[in-house]
Amino acid sequence: MNTFGRNFRCTTFGESHGKAVGVVIDGCPPGIGLTETDIQPYLDRRRPGKSPLESARQELDRVEILSGTFGGRTTGAPIALVVRNQDARSGDYDALRDVFRPGHADYTWQAKYGLRDHRGGGRSSGRETLARVAAGAVAMRCLAPQGIEVSGRVIEVHGTVEPEAMEAEIRAARDAGDSVGGIVEVTATGCPPGLGDPVFGKLDAAIAGAMMGIGAVKGVEIGEGFGAARMFGSEMNDPITSSGFASNHAGGILGGISTGQDIVVRVAVKPTPSIRRTQRTVDTTGAERDVSVEGRHDPCIAPRIVPVAECMLALVIVDALLEQRKYRG
Amino acid sequence: MNTFGRNFRCTTFGESHGKAVGVVIDGCPPGIGLTETDIQPYLDRRRPGKSPLESARQELDRVEILSGTFGGRTTGAPIALVVRNQDARSGDYDALRDVFRPGHADYTWQAKYGLRDHRGGGRSSGRETLARVAAGAVAMRCLAPQGIEVSGRVIEVHGTVEPEAMEAEIRAARDAGDSVGGIVEVTATGCPPGLGDPVFGKLDAAIAGAMMGIGAVKGVEIGEGFGAARMFGSEMNDPITSSGFASNHAGGILGGISTGQDIVVRVAVKPTPSIRRTQRTVDTTGAERDVSVEGRHDPCIAPRIVPVAECMLALVIVDALLEQRKYRG
Amino acid sequence: MNTFGRNFRCTTFGESHGKAVGVVIDGCPPGIGLTETDIQPYLDRRRPGKSPLESARQELDRVEILSGTFGGRTTGAPIALVVRNQDARSGDYDALRDVFRPGHADYTWQAKYGLRDHRGGGRSSGRETLARVAAGAVAMRCLAPQGIEVSGRVIEVHGTVEPEAMEAEIRAARDAGDSVGGIVEVTATGCPPGLGDPVFGKLDAAIAGAMMGIGAVKGVEIGEGFGAARMFGSEMNDPITSSGFASNHAGGILGGISTGQDIVVRVAVKPTPSIRRTQRTVDTTGAERDVSVEGRHDPCIAPRIVPVAECMLALVIVDALLEQRKYRG
Amino acid sequence: MNTFGRNFRCTTFGESHGKAVGVVIDGCPPGIGLTETDIQPYLDRRRPGKSPLESARQELDRVEILSGTFGGRTTGAPIALVVRNQDARSGDYDALRDVFRPGHADYTWQAKYGLRDHRGGGRSSGRETLARVAAGAVAMRCLAPQGIEVSGRVIEVHGTVEPEAMEAEIRAARDAGDSVGGIVEVTATGCPPGLGDPVFGKLDAAIAGAMMGIGAVKGVEIGEGFGAARMFGSEMNDPITSSGFASNHAGGILGGISTGQDIVVRVAVKPTPSIRRTQRTVDTTGAERDVSVEGRHDPCIAPRIVPVAECMLALVIVDALLEQRKYRG
Repeated sequence: MNTFGRNFRCTTFGESHGKAVGVVIDGCPPGIGLTETDIQPYLDRRRPGKSPLESARQELDRVEILSGTFGGRTTGAPIALVVRNQDARSGDYDALRDVFRPGHADYTWQAKYGLRDHRGGGRSSGRETLARVAAGAVAMRCLAPQGIEVSGRVIEVHGTVEPEAMEAEIRAARDAGDSVGGIVEVTATGCPPGLGDPVFGKLDAAIAGAMMGIGAVKGVEIGEGFGAARMFGSEMNDPITSSGFASNHAGGILGGISTGQDIVVRVAVKPTPSIRRTQRTVDTTGAERDVSVEGRHDPCIAPRIVPVAECMLALVIVDALLEQRKYRG
Repeated sequence: MNTFGRNFRCTTFGESHGKAVGVVIDGCPPGIGLTETDIQPYLDRRRPGKSPLESARQELDRVEILSGTFGGRTTGAPIALVVRNQDARSGDYDALRDVFRPGHADYTWQAKYGLRDHRGGGRSSGRETLARVAAGAVAMRCLAPQGIEVSGRVIEVHGTVEPEAMEAEIRAARDAGDSVGGIVEVTATGCPPGLGDPVFGKLDAAIAGAMMGIGAVKGVEIGEGFGAARMFGSEMNDPITSSGFASNHAGGILGGISTGQDIVVRVAVKPTPSIRRTQRTVDTTGAERDVSVEGRHDPCIAPRIVPVAECMLALVIVDALLEQRKYRG
Repeated sequence: MNTFGRNFRCTTFGESHGKAVGVVIDGCPPGIGLTETDIQPYLDRRRPGKSPLESARQELDRVEILSGTFGGRTTGAPIALVVRNQDARSGDYDALRDVFRPGHADYTWQAKYGLRDHRGGGRSSGRETLARVAAGAVAMRCLAPQGIEVSGRVIEVHGTVEPEAMEAEIRAARDAGDSVGGIVEVTATGCPPGLGDPVFGKLDAAIAGAMMGIGAVKGVEIGEGFGAARMFGSEMNDPITSSGFASNHAGGILGGISTGQDIVVRVAVKPTPSIRRTQRTVDTTGAERDVSVEGRHDPCIAPRIVPVAECMLALVIVDALLEQRKYRG
Repeated sequence: MNTFGRNFRCTTFGESHGKAVGVVIDGCPPGIGLTETDIQPYLDRRRPGKSPLESARQELDRVEILSGTFGGRTTGAPIALVVRNQDARSGDYDALRDVFRPGHADYTWQAKYGLRDHRGGGRSSGRETLARVAAGAVAMRCLAPQGIEVSGRVIEVHGTVEPEAMEAEIRAARDAGDSVGGIVEVTATGCPPGLGDPVFGKLDAAIAGAMMGIGAVKGVEIGEGFGAARMFGSEMNDPITSSGFASNHAGGILGGISTGQDIVVRVAVKPTPSIRRTQRTVDTTGAERDVSVEGRHDPCIAPRIVPVAECMLALVIVDALLEQRKYRG
């Protein structure tokens, strides 16, 4: 399944070292102003190679709109966005052709499909998220006129929460040929109450699925999240006053439906599985091998998850907004 | 959206104090032995009123199979399961007709739909999970012959992890007219590798959506979960040996696809929002009110979430199994 | 797949001789007045046993609303409708347990699922359409306030078009232990322009799928239909004037989207496959058998298709109306 | 909705005079041999400008595979296929910018979306079918190893059935600045029994939806089709013998499920709406206008519908094949 969303449906395609990565957005409302320059800044934020703490892969990641707009506005037709791959140094991966990298999808993809594009993780590469970000940029264009904004940041790296300490952790891991995990928080402001369905289309369930669907994410929480498990009901419940909710332990969602408060989501990001340190693994014949993943990798992927998580949240919200319109007068 | 699943599609219906709660399962393979006695034990486990620490609502919760079986076996036709409500003391809720209970879906349902069945939470009641459990029981019948088993337990209540301490916490909360949260862990054993799709149909994403879709759940994690954010890559990555994975930090899923190891999921359960202690809220006119929720409520809902979470995991797995069959030879 | 519709989703269940037939409607807007008395007249129109030219099976077909309404209005929750089977003379079918009736789904169901409920056709019985009619009745309740009405009639039986001649054809077929086919025309008036999607969600494609999905239907046409194949473009094209379209050869749909004119659909109904005349067939062992289908059957099923076709058209239109709302301002 | 299929999901995009037309196929099984040269012949068959009786638009229609294959085989990842537009003489359409061409989607698209790409019909152009044909070519690659073949032909033009007479009708219409309709028949051989679902996923319903979803198609029939309405049951029912069905009036489908016989479908194609003869219409201000559609158009579109109808049938069958696999042992 390579489609996300019920109303604002995004179908992504492309492999890390194939010809291109892209997305088709089906269900975008007509009349939204949209050109490449609206999308490009989001891709630039996500792009690797911007700092010494990130992968050195150099991609311009220039997006092209192939369809769905006319005169700079969306028409209601599907919007195809394509980014050509350029700096795909597939040769880096020749040594890994027959080896299952620990912590990656190599083994499981092979188990599922019986063959795989080993170059850079193929379809399971983080590069696929480029397509999600492109789609998310279009979602943001739909949300802005409604006064809805989404923003995220890294709030923790390897247990530290101060910016300088976080950066030091990443640097130390890189120097040790290792990697570290972190936590990203994403917040949406300006959402109206009423988004989300009460049973299987809960807004928080959609968010959880969207976030856990980002590679490297191992946990998702809304509002107090796991902290709620250690609270009393009298602490957790948000009192309601004539001027609105008095607190937001719920993270903006009750019974699966938005309350109108900020929607607050946190995701746990595991350490980048690609590390230079030697690891034990097997090859496709089952023989044991030692592997050191050279290539170009981020020692902490959390910072680059930020724009992806923002975009996924934007996609969930725009989808719920369109859904909600069906049931208005 | 009241349907769960793409292949083993479960559509639930019913309100807490309406005539019945039920589910239609579409996509169950033919030839599975199935009678009411296969389903009833699951409903009995979920049923309230079994201990003084649970809601005292007395429901026999007798399930009836209305369709989809012939001679005690499934036929491939949709399976409709219905449980009639009996001990619905709607009068308990008359005082709450116009009041939004804090921590409940009352306010958000009203904001979304403009009218609501206030009796016992209506459609947003935990009683709806009865239908999920009935469906999950059928899923379990499909999984058993494949050697797949699902089981769960409460691993933490209000920060305590010893069974006696957990029970004491619940008792203390009840006596104080309050409630407490907890953590439930669910494990699936026997899953083959290859379940789940690599991008938007990730097995962990489906699990996260399923779990966050249970009322009161505020967080979900797989394997090391939030702990992964505090680890090095060299700790988190599971080495692969010729006899299989050497550890299971991943919780049985890599790149969204099952590895063949145990699938391990934990969910954070918030304290039951219905508490006797007085809370501030507003009524449907916006006027401020004090509310004390009497009725019959569990001071900690985590134990009753266990069978629901098990069933949701079973539903996700059977759905992925059917999906996977499409791409075999 | 037992669900129809993307927005107004109807999941039907039940077999001809099982306990009940029913439907769950998910996606009905809230606030629609709905009680059993709104639905019953539609079921009564569809009910067998009303004339000597119809099956003599006697069913009261009393519908019960199990969920989704409160105080006589829909709440936005799924609406479960159930009709208990009563006059199921399964014994009539004992002789047919192992025989594949020609023209029925007996052989193909067995080929697909490996086992089947042979009683009265099981799930493939025309009795399943009762659930569609119940759902259609709810759809009609949604359409009426929009000024949309759907009505149908038999326009041809066995090549004759005069009412008396049509009745005579049916009578003659019945007396000969045979059956005859016919054509049903259904029209929707009052549809706004703009319903339907331009590519794969075309309104006419949805109608064609809905109609061909009624058992016994072998052809569907819109507007001029097959007649269009014999026309010039200058005849077929409907001129547009300042007061609207000057003709309606298109049958109310252009490019898959409603024009605002009447939507006109015709369906070809094959002769009822159950006939008393002896036919050649095989049993489940592959041995050749002669079969005469006794039981209680309509010698021409076209009249009883009328309410079903009306309801399917209503379901398609209400679904398109909800879809269209997503893309308004 | 720009996606077709449940298992072999094809999402098309692109406008007649935009940058490109394409499709993303999600759900194609892994391991299928696939390169551009497998797809190109299908596009060449569909391509305009091959005879004086066809549109003179000159497009090379070169397909490029952007993703989803590795080493010439499908990997299970989504397959993106793109064809760049080249000979888009949008200037031809300047005069039509504000005019609704009779028989086209111009008026209805405008009514639906409020704005439109007027150039060559934009998204509603027949050029979109290029994407369906590209997807169908991939479907054919999946069907061939199963021994399933699909082929079609024009069997009637403007009421004539002899090849020479059909060609003469087209020529005469062209010379008169007019157009004519026709009938296309498509047959699938080699389908196993058991494809299709008995209620809403009927194989014939899926076919009807697929065919009516082709622009210009106004009617669909299976097997005897509308002829069945004029038959006796004793004529229409196909007797079953120990060596199989003795006839195929059903067109290969009973109760919505394939019988194993040839699947036979006919579609009614209306005359091309673009004609040189003057027609009455209105412009976007509602003012009456006379219009003569110059441009490059086929006087009878039926021949060019043939590969499209073949491909849609192939897509329906491959989708049903994948669906059916879920319910095998």
